[in-house]
Amino acid sequence: MSELRILTPGLGAVSTTLMAGVMLARKGLARPIGALSEYGDLDGKPINDLLAPLDQISFGAWDPYDESAYEVAERSGVLSAEHLAAVADELMEIVPKSAVFDPTWVQALSGAPHVKTGDSHMDLVEQIIEDIESYRADGQRVVMVWCGSTEAYHHPTAVHQSLTDFELGLKNNDSAIAPSQLYGYAAIRAGVPFANGAPNVTVDIPALEQMAEQYGVPIAGKDFKTGQTLMKTVIAPGLKARRLGVRGWFSTNILGNRDGLVLDHPDNFRSKEITKLGVLDSLLKPEEHPDLYGDLSHEVRINYYPPAGDNKEGWDNIDIVGWMDYPMQIKVNFLCRDSILAAPIVLDLARFLDLAGSAGNSGIQDWLGFYFKSPHPVEGRSVEHDLFVQERVLMDEIRALSGRLAPVD
Amino acid sequence: MSELRILTPGLGAVSTTLMAGVMLARKGLARPIGALSEYGDLDGKPINDLLAPLDQISFGAWDPYDESAYEVAERSGVLSAEHLAAVADELMEIVPKSAVFDPTWVQALSGAPHVKTGDSHMDLVEQIIEDIESYRADGQRVVMVWCGSTEAYHHPTAVHQSLTDFELGLKNNDSAIAPSQLYGYAAIRAGVPFANGAPNVTVDIPALEQMAEQYGVPIAGKDFKTGQTLMKTVIAPGLKARRLGVRGWFSTNILGNRDGLVLDHPDNFRSKEITKLGVLDSLLKPEEHPDLYGDLSHEVRINYYPPAGDNKEGWDNIDIVGWMDYPMQIKVNFLCRDSILAAPIVLDLARFLDLAGSAGNSGIQDWLGFYFKSPHPVEGRSVEHDLFVQERVLMDEIRALSGRLAPVD
Amino acid sequence: MSELRILTPGLGAVSTTLMAGVMLARKGLARPIGALSEYGDLDGKPINDLLAPLDQISFGAWDPYDESAYEVAERSGVLSAEHLAAVADELMEIVPKSAVFDPTWVQALSGAPHVKTGDSHMDLVEQIIEDIESYRADGQRVVMVWCGSTEAYHHPTAVHQSLTDFELGLKNNDSAIAPSQLYGYAAIRAGVPFANGAPNVTVDIPALEQMAEQYGVPIAGKDFKTGQTLMKTVIAPGLKARRLGVRGWFSTNILGNRDGLVLDHPDNFRSKEITKLGVLDSLLKPEEHPDLYGDLSHEVRINYYPPAGDNKEGWDNIDIVGWMDYPMQIKVNFLCRDSILAAPIVLDLARFLDLAGSAGNSGIQDWLGFYFKSPHPVEGRSVEHDLFVQERVLMDEIRALSGRLAPVD
Amino acid sequence: MSELRILTPGLGAVSTTLMAGVMLARKGLARPIGALSEYGDLDGKPINDLLAPLDQISFGAWDPYDESAYEVAERSGVLSAEHLAAVADELMEIVPKSAVFDPTWVQALSGAPHVKTGDSHMDLVEQIIEDIESYRADGQRVVMVWCGSTEAYHHPTAVHQSLTDFELGLKNNDSAIAPSQLYGYAAIRAGVPFANGAPNVTVDIPALEQMAEQYGVPIAGKDFKTGQTLMKTVIAPGLKARRLGVRGWFSTNILGNRDGLVLDHPDNFRSKEITKLGVLDSLLKPEEHPDLYGDLSHEVRINYYPPAGDNKEGWDNIDIVGWMDYPMQIKVNFLCRDSILAAPIVLDLARFLDLAGSAGNSGIQDWLGFYFKSPHPVEGRSVEHDLFVQERVLMDEIRALSGRLAPVD
Repeated sequence: MSELRILTPGLGAVSTTLMAGVMLARKGLARPIGALSEYGDLDGKPINDLLAPLDQISFGAWDPYDESAYEVAERSGVLSAEHLAAVADELMEIVPKSAVFDPTWVQALSGAPHVKTGDSHMDLVEQIIEDIESYRADGQRVVMVWCGSTEAYHHPTAVHQSLTDFELGLKNNDSAIAPSQLYGYAAIRAGVPFANGAPNVTVDIPALEQMAEQYGVPIAGKDFKTGQTLMKTVIAPGLKARRLGVRGWFSTNILGNRDGLVLDHPDNFRSKEITKLGVLDSLLKPEEHPDLYGDLSHEVRINYYPPAGDNKEGWDNIDIVGWMDYPMQIKVNFLCRDSILAAPIVLDLARFLDLAGSAGNSGIQDWLGFYFKSPHPVEGRSVEHDLFVQERVLMDEIRALSGRLAPVD
Repeated sequence: MSELRILTPGLGAVSTTLMAGVMLARKGLARPIGALSEYGDLDGKPINDLLAPLDQISFGAWDPYDESAYEVAERSGVLSAEHLAAVADELMEIVPKSAVFDPTWVQALSGAPHVKTGDSHMDLVEQIIEDIESYRADGQRVVMVWCGSTEAYHHPTAVHQSLTDFELGLKNNDSAIAPSQLYGYAAIRAGVPFANGAPNVTVDIPALEQMAEQYGVPIAGKDFKTGQTLMKTVIAPGLKARRLGVRGWFSTNILGNRDGLVLDHPDNFRSKEITKLGVLDSLLKPEEHPDLYGDLSHEVRINYYPPAGDNKEGWDNIDIVGWMDYPMQIKVNFLCRDSILAAPIVLDLARFLDLAGSAGNSGIQDWLGFYFKSPHPVEGRSVEHDLFVQERVLMDEIRALSGRLAPVD
Repeated sequence: MSELRILTPGLGAVSTTLMAGVMLARKGLARPIGALSEYGDLDGKPINDLLAPLDQISFGAWDPYDESAYEVAERSGVLSAEHLAAVADELMEIVPKSAVFDPTWVQALSGAPHVKTGDSHMDLVEQIIEDIESYRADGQRVVMVWCGSTEAYHHPTAVHQSLTDFELGLKNNDSAIAPSQLYGYAAIRAGVPFANGAPNVTVDIPALEQMAEQYGVPIAGKDFKTGQTLMKTVIAPGLKARRLGVRGWFSTNILGNRDGLVLDHPDNFRSKEITKLGVLDSLLKPEEHPDLYGDLSHEVRINYYPPAGDNKEGWDNIDIVGWMDYPMQIKVNFLCRDSILAAPIVLDLARFLDLAGSAGNSGIQDWLGFYFKSPHPVEGRSVEHDLFVQERVLMDEIRALSGRLAPVD
Repeated sequence: MSELRILTPGLGAVSTTLMAGVMLARKGLARPIGALSEYGDLDGKPINDLLAPLDQISFGAWDPYDESAYEVAERSGVLSAEHLAAVADELMEIVPKSAVFDPTWVQALSGAPHVKTGDSHMDLVEQIIEDIESYRADGQRVVMVWCGSTEAYHHPTAVHQSLTDFELGLKNNDSAIAPSQLYGYAAIRAGVPFANGAPNVTVDIPALEQMAEQYGVPIAGKDFKTGQTLMKTVIAPGLKARRLGVRGWFSTNILGNRDGLVLDHPDNFRSKEITKLGVLDSLLKPEEHPDLYGDLSHEVRINYYPPAGDNKEGWDNIDIVGWMDYPMQIKVNFLCRDSILAAPIVLDLARFLDLAGSAGNSGIQDWLGFYFKSPHPVEGRSVEHDLFVQERVLMDEIRALSGRLAPVD
């Protein structure tokens, strides 16, 4: 059986941590903890029986800086010297293809040198598709997971509303089309499942939703649910189960990696803020419980703070009220590591999208909402943020997919 | 329809906070937040339609100190001066009956003056039953919820293994029988549903389990799941869903009320430690996931610290590991109020046990595990600690009970 | 001996908390904790022997809203119902005079109704002086402490450089002159010692520094050192004493009172940021210790978060390095109460400025730096932020002042 | 000039971290941060001009386990793999001499194999002195710093009250004499300055105090002031400066190294508890300020928690009261590294004791209190815990010593 190649627009801390981890795990030098696709069971059997095995997984990437995966990993400071050394050779061989990049969408990286040029958006799309083809020249199956920087927030415009308009926009170089959308479009056209790990608007527009259905390609997003929001989607359902009121939830983050630098710009932070803020309302449903959650102050801050490096840290202050409205507080300090939490999510998404594609799924895969801060809903369905409901939905779909695949085997 | 009277062995901070809250809510002066029985819905209809309404609820209590509910509430420092003043008259009318009390089980309260005397345990039981009868002289339905101090830990002995032996022990004054067990026995004999809010061994012994079945009386326990353990049963399932490893969980508590004083004694703390420590293993299932949870250090400390008063505070340090075993930490500081969290649990338990009794349930009600640190399991079933699974089980049973009651209506 | 009247531009949470506290303390109903002027000793004798006694202190205020001190205190939510009730009558009698106010300096309070009008800045100054005279009509000694909102940041211009230019600017209505500067000028002209509790530029300009010297009036500032910065000026010297390196200090605050609302505007926050940021450099002296403090990221955030009310809360993450550059962290969560910490500072400043004035001091009183985030230095002297050095300097000056006063007595 | 050899009873995490750091610093591969003796100035000149230079410092040790410094360092997990590798050869050469050890004083290490035997305490003393002589065979100057485990608490008895009785006890094998006291006695007899880094009673007994005076040997102690207590001696003076009241201070620690294991035994914890508890009373002086500090609950807990390893972590909850007794809280979470904080203290103490000895000081060196949780006071002087006062005293003495040494140079 052919191998699975995971392609990441963005060769940064997250994707190199994923790569190194898979390489080390294959050698028995590290454990792929945090990956449900490795550690999960379905009805008593390991889920990974259904999935591309670790030793059949390879990688590819695009990046606006021409550094090898080794150089990126070393600079990012996520991995220990021992881990880096053990897979240095393999990491050095992974060099990114030049990226589609436009500094108006990520000002903090203006001047990035390893960038494709072309006459139009459509011309750039063709170049991406060529890259994809070269990545699967030997018959590999391929999935794409956006691991690039968060783009500036722009509300979708008319050009995003239908595939016809979108393709016209690609030819006309419409400035409302973001670089990530070029990757999304290229992936779908090439029949490559696509997931979006960042909060920018990418395939969550009518044009690409239609296209994914039409081309029979699974898509999913968006914004990996790693540290603080993960905790939020665990704690808020707990408070609600007990009908404790919530008057305020203040979340602040400090992080010092490139992600933090990019988010230090208000336009890029706006993308993130939207995905982070939506969570509580959806979980607590103030419209159904105005007494308990109708008057909730929810604030989210992200602060670029270089000493933190990749060690993203969240501090949450939760103001709750109990019996007779007496106030209480919960404070959560999460000393996490951004890339360590995100890497297994990329692995899971890539394998599950590959499974979904193989089983014939197409369009929005909302059962992957377990992994996202802002799950991309199928039209007409509401967004579910509760991690435990998401977990059940995920397992149910994997069971269904495995059933459909079974006869093939 | 007759009223429901909630009887509490123990007239302390928890029970007086419950009483004041119900009285204030009836006057529209406070909201019974935290009570699912007030704020919950079942299939779109308020759960409290099925339950004894707040204005039909009254109280009764036993305590080894002869203070009125007003005096206790004032001394406990839980309620604001405004709240206290608004229900002072009603609280003053509630005076406890003398308690069955034995200082060998709660050394910290040695010398308590308002104590029943009798020739034997069985004689004391008869006195409790008399009290119960006087509390329902006007036709009230009655439930009993243990809100007394945590008794010292004693492993059950032969006397606890059958009803016959137990009744013999009552007559013989067997020193292995705890005061709380006298209340439990008396309640069952009087046909009164019983719940245990403390960690001591009470009705969770074969003798009283049998008796509850035989007499058709519902029982439930034990140890109210309020602050720190509540958070544990929310966060641990979240970590497990994501297959993050856990190497350590250190929980410390500071509290300064009488509960803290009692738990300052190692024998009484032992009772609490057992119920608190069992939670993680049951949630994380190290036997199924030895890679992730096989080597977990779980420590629980409770510290008597007078400045905290009733403001129990928990600090948890959770050592987790992710991708490639990189360590991360979560620290949770819960500034809670013990009685504010416990009072609505007493209300819910009383109403749900009343419902269960009315619908003909008897014996162990394990569907009430949602409310307990150490849920009392029906024989042959494993204990479920996951708050979200517990919530589903609870709602399912309420639905079933309402179905059975419906024709009556 | 005549009484001391404390005048506050700004009748808000801080000043009403001060007033209520003094009133309650006089009745023996509360203790003036946090006031060195009450609880301090000098060479074994109580400092307050040298100072205006509490029962000789009265108050006056200006505010752009026409609410009595009682109404303000009630709305601010700082005081308990019992405390409020016990001094309600006295507080109701304190009503503010209309304020000099200009919304361009405090946008959040645009539309405030209780505002003086006049032909020119100088005209408004005359009105303030009239108010002052009415406040000392019975021979009271008077001091003024700015307790108003933080004004927007503006760098001083030419008009602030000399008294001549400044007075011309007052007549010409120069838009670079802030309302607080009108109060400062008026106070000095009226011979009233002046302290500035907020971070705005007020008397810390050459024009008013000269004037204070010339008129023989003591002035001091600025920005009360209450919670987070107080801790900073304690912890940073401790780290430095041990020669531990500091790579980062991230400070965030949440507060929900009017102060928070005003600081939510970037221009007003800028004033605060400047005073808060200056502290660490001055304490750690990176120029002398580039190895240890040369590369320090210091970030300060203030977030308006209504649920906090007056309960300002700070969270600091301090990244330190030790032996061989191994990293460590200190996290400080200060659950403070803004007005409770500030009120005794106002009392101390008023009494000490009164003492200084009586003893003949004039101009900048840098020995009061103990109380300020951004101590106003005498020209040619460096700013001292170390709380313990400040304490010594303060006590030395009080000793010197007491020596000078002694013969009078 | 001859080199300085630092001898440590105890070759554990602290002493090997010291050794590795000095070796790495000499190679320019690490910085000796946290050492005032390296980074401090006196009147504008580096203090280390007065002291044994790093490249003249060597080491020696005793330990009840026969592991080289390399093996110990590797097992302790304090140093990075890179650091370890760079000085592996030098560390391997350091092997401990067998220790005087008695499991009744440190039960957790019962069965330790590398232990001296002898007919009497005095016989063991002679063996220690022989070891000392072999360590200074080439003319090195020598100091000894106790870095061994905390011994069980025993109140001094009659045998400790005079040198005569003590020496009789050594001959008679008096069971009240602790192993650490044998080292202390041996050091003094050999003319070797001695400091005690642990909380056990060692040279702080009349017998050895007299002896140190008589033999002209400087001694100092006890219990290195590293993390939590360091913060306490910084924050408490800050609160007191502002006359904020303190009602409670709850300190808990988690640590997982051998130190934690030893302190898990109540007898050994008792030694530590005594040194840790004394601090606050001495700082806040409740007898002088009964209003503010008279009713303070001070609790200290140390918990053995293996996942923490050498990363000792402290959590402090401080309950303070301000104006009108309104309560506030400060919570400090110190994520420190025990050996990283202690190693530079050993270096400083060794060099300063060497300086003191060279300058002719003898007996108790209370000016070194800056480094200790429980400073050993000269008779008749009170103990000073305030870090900033201690710093001043330290610098003053160094100045005095340098003055006395100057003519020699």
